[in-house]
Amino acid sequence: MSKGLIKRSENYSQWYNELVVKADLAENSAVRGCMVIKPYGYAIWEKMQAQLDKMFKDTGHMNAYFPLFIPKSFFNKEASHVDGFAKECAVVTHYRLRTTENNEIEVDPNAKLEEELIVRPTSETIIWNTYKNWIQSYRDLPILVNQWANVVRWEMRTRLFLRTAEFLWQEGHTAHATKEEAIEETKQMINVYAEFAENWMAMPVKIGTKTDSERFAGAVDTYTIEALMQDGKALQSGTSHFLGQNFAKAFDVKFLTKENKEEYVWASSWGVSTRLMGALIMSHSDDLGLVLPPKLAPFQVVFVPIFKNDDQLNAISERIDPIIKALKSRGITVQFDKRDSQRPGFKFAEYELKGYPVRVAVGPRDLESGQYEVARRDTLEKSFVAESEIVEYIENLLGEMQTAIFNKAKIRREETTSKVDTYDEFKKILEEKPGFILAHWDGTAETEERIKNETKATIRCIPIDSEKEEGKCMVTGKPSKRRVIFAKAY
Amino acid sequence: MSKGLIKRSENYSQWYNELVVKADLAENSAVRGCMVIKPYGYAIWEKMQAQLDKMFKDTGHMNAYFPLFIPKSFFNKEASHVDGFAKECAVVTHYRLRTTENNEIEVDPNAKLEEELIVRPTSETIIWNTYKNWIQSYRDLPILVNQWANVVRWEMRTRLFLRTAEFLWQEGHTAHATKEEAIEETKQMINVYAEFAENWMAMPVKIGTKTDSERFAGAVDTYTIEALMQDGKALQSGTSHFLGQNFAKAFDVKFLTKENKEEYVWASSWGVSTRLMGALIMSHSDDLGLVLPPKLAPFQVVFVPIFKNDDQLNAISERIDPIIKALKSRGITVQFDKRDSQRPGFKFAEYELKGYPVRVAVGPRDLESGQYEVARRDTLEKSFVAESEIVEYIENLLGEMQTAIFNKAKIRREETTSKVDTYDEFKKILEEKPGFILAHWDGTAETEERIKNETKATIRCIPIDSEKEEGKCMVTGKPSKRRVIFAKAY
Repeated sequence: MSKGLIKRSENYSQWYNELVVKADLAENSAVRGCMVIKPYGYAIWEKMQAQLDKMFKDTGHMNAYFPLFIPKSFFNKEASHVDGFAKECAVVTHYRLRTTENNEIEVDPNAKLEEELIVRPTSETIIWNTYKNWIQSYRDLPILVNQWANVVRWEMRTRLFLRTAEFLWQEGHTAHATKEEAIEETKQMINVYAEFAENWMAMPVKIGTKTDSERFAGAVDTYTIEALMQDGKALQSGTSHFLGQNFAKAFDVKFLTKENKEEYVWASSWGVSTRLMGALIMSHSDDLGLVLPPKLAPFQVVFVPIFKNDDQLNAISERIDPIIKALKSRGITVQFDKRDSQRPGFKFAEYELKGYPVRVAVGPRDLESGQYEVARRDTLEKSFVAESEIVEYIENLLGEMQTAIFNKAKIRREETTSKVDTYDEFKKILEEKPGFILAHWDGTAETEERIKNETKATIRCIPIDSEKEEGKCMVTGKPSKRRVIFAKAY
Repeated sequence: MSKGLIKRSENYSQWYNELVVKADLAENSAVRGCMVIKPYGYAIWEKMQAQLDKMFKDTGHMNAYFPLFIPKSFFNKEASHVDGFAKECAVVTHYRLRTTENNEIEVDPNAKLEEELIVRPTSETIIWNTYKNWIQSYRDLPILVNQWANVVRWEMRTRLFLRTAEFLWQEGHTAHATKEEAIEETKQMINVYAEFAENWMAMPVKIGTKTDSERFAGAVDTYTIEALMQDGKALQSGTSHFLGQNFAKAFDVKFLTKENKEEYVWASSWGVSTRLMGALIMSHSDDLGLVLPPKLAPFQVVFVPIFKNDDQLNAISERIDPIIKALKSRGITVQFDKRDSQRPGFKFAEYELKGYPVRVAVGPRDLESGQYEVARRDTLEKSFVAESEIVEYIENLLGEMQTAIFNKAKIRREETTSKVDTYDEFKKILEEKPGFILAHWDGTAETEERIKNETKATIRCIPIDSEKEEGKCMVTGKPSKRRVIFAKAY
């Protein structure tokens, strides 16, 4: 651990980049645009995965696995999908290397694939090509499948977690007998994402639908959860798509209804990715480092003994070990940092940087007084807590912190959400107090495009909870039925 | 579900292929050599993953994630590694597609990568290139990291689970300050694999080391667990490699010792893959379908109600629901198949095919007698069990089956393990009673090669538990110190 982070107020973007690396979350690899997710970062991702996976299974889904590669021709089958996805991607053209006379390695020109393979940027095509064989009658429906996988999109400008060439995600792909059921599934899953974001990541989100231009390539409707980062920029954190019969038609997937009629199957797909790691980091962290909601912290509590020799350490351990045991029996994850190679001050800074929610410092004098210093990471407040009460205290504190971190993020979001009625005011707010901006829009792609070009702000979503409100588009003055949410976005 | 499987005795290989597909475990995809792992098959893999992951974490490892792609030049750095791995692999040469005038998709010739990327066949090179930056001093060691990932090896002849172009696996990659510690880790992990194979997969294995010719490319020593399938062919089920300082030297990874001396780091790597699914299937299953050890069955118990109308089904449910609840509270996974679209006989066959360990049939008359028919999948035995005892009975039965399935496989292995002293006898046994053959070998690659060419049998391992026994090589008559295990292998 070297010196501290740059301050958010000085350079938010640099602060993020430094934090990701210094907190041991991820780093750039030798392969352009691909990241290495380090053990501590991956442990957070595993916590996310475990909870999401549970929520998917609780809503009736099962996991499966589909190929990494997609034949090039598959992308041609769904017209709008190809434009959205088949452009910037990794293309496998050969299947063998050979050694040259100079003992170097080269691609064997004799091992060229007849049809190039695309490393999946998303799996709708290969999955619907597979579903074709799984679905004959209404009895085979619904299919409720999820996949945890890596995907590749050849991004030119990458940032750790936020935009990388390879990333990890889950993609749900469901097949239904009716339109209504597919829409219900689409909505159910965006709600699962919202619940996860708010109750686990402690990150408030707005649920809404995307405009035509921001919609997933191949979808009829895209639902999104949008979060607001500390710099006032929005981050799309999860999407759920109602695909209509588009992919069923592209891959000729029909089924026999109860009434013995042939119909195309209805579909949804939905996904969240390691991008959530970026959202988590930027939602709560501060100038000292990571702030993690306790539910997603790999270790929720760390004990730092303050000692000068082995005798002191042993005396501390003797008193601390039963406390650790009691905490663990309540399902709380604990570390006890006995390293003598680092001083306590160094350790304190390290655990602040890594976002351990609760830190307990115990020295020889504390053993006498029977009171230990408990520091909470979110507010940095310290309390002295009696040994007899500390287990209960920490358990309650973790719950309290989970709520406090959410509330803080929610208040921040509300403070940086503005209602705006003129385009001038809109631009001014974007400059002076960026955040979500609720404004009227005439519903055309032209106006949306114009605003984007002139201000870099985009329509994040048409919120599902928005009230009907007659108004006039802030740009064209044309009539509008409800406000939409604008923001600059990651 | 169509008609039954072909018999093992008629065509073992076809039986396996049919079983994998009909039991809904996996199927071939549209991409040559790549499989789709179906939800039921994937649920078994998830059970394997969960237990292995727990065992890795219990032995101090953490998970991380490294890039899918490896720069071509990395394979040149470890001389023997390149021959073993960089040949048959998927090569990414371009990063963009474009649409032609005829609205077709083609690879954009302007988007050629400067250096080709290889889809990882294994990750030693990219990981050791990363570790270089993680390791400066002995304080940074050991690194105990595992990765769950997909890998690609361009196999020409593929079979579901056993040999596919893409497969799922885990790969542990550890770095140590001393040779002894790295060897200890290598052995620890092969023992973890053996414990998993025997106690979870109910599959007895032989632990041993590989000969020079069968060793992992880049390893100093390869430990293996070898299982014996029902057709008498061996299946290598997991390997753990002591890599010496080979990769540290190739990627220049040095550390400062406590004594402030610079030294190369010592390494191990170890892995198991979805190949274990093939091993599991072939170890226990029969002509009716899959036989699963209860610890790895996605659903351990299925209740099949026998009913003619909703009233009967409701009456059955009323009595069965509390039993299901009681079973679940003991951590037992249960399904209750209320479908009225299929007859009980059809369902029985389906659950036998899919290897549900315990099936309980309940009809209206059983409600009166208060006794239910409990069928166990491994022996197909049925018992009538009183309602009041059924929860306890099933819990015990599942434990008993786990042991019985292991014992059956172990007896079969012992019955097909032979000690042989002449080459003629060796060939005869291979024809008539294939299995493990313990024989003396002179320790040379030439003799090993000759035996392989003449009989297709290979040395599976030099077993670690073999007793020292002076003897003569069955082929050359040269002296040998111990018997090694031969078999034909998958």
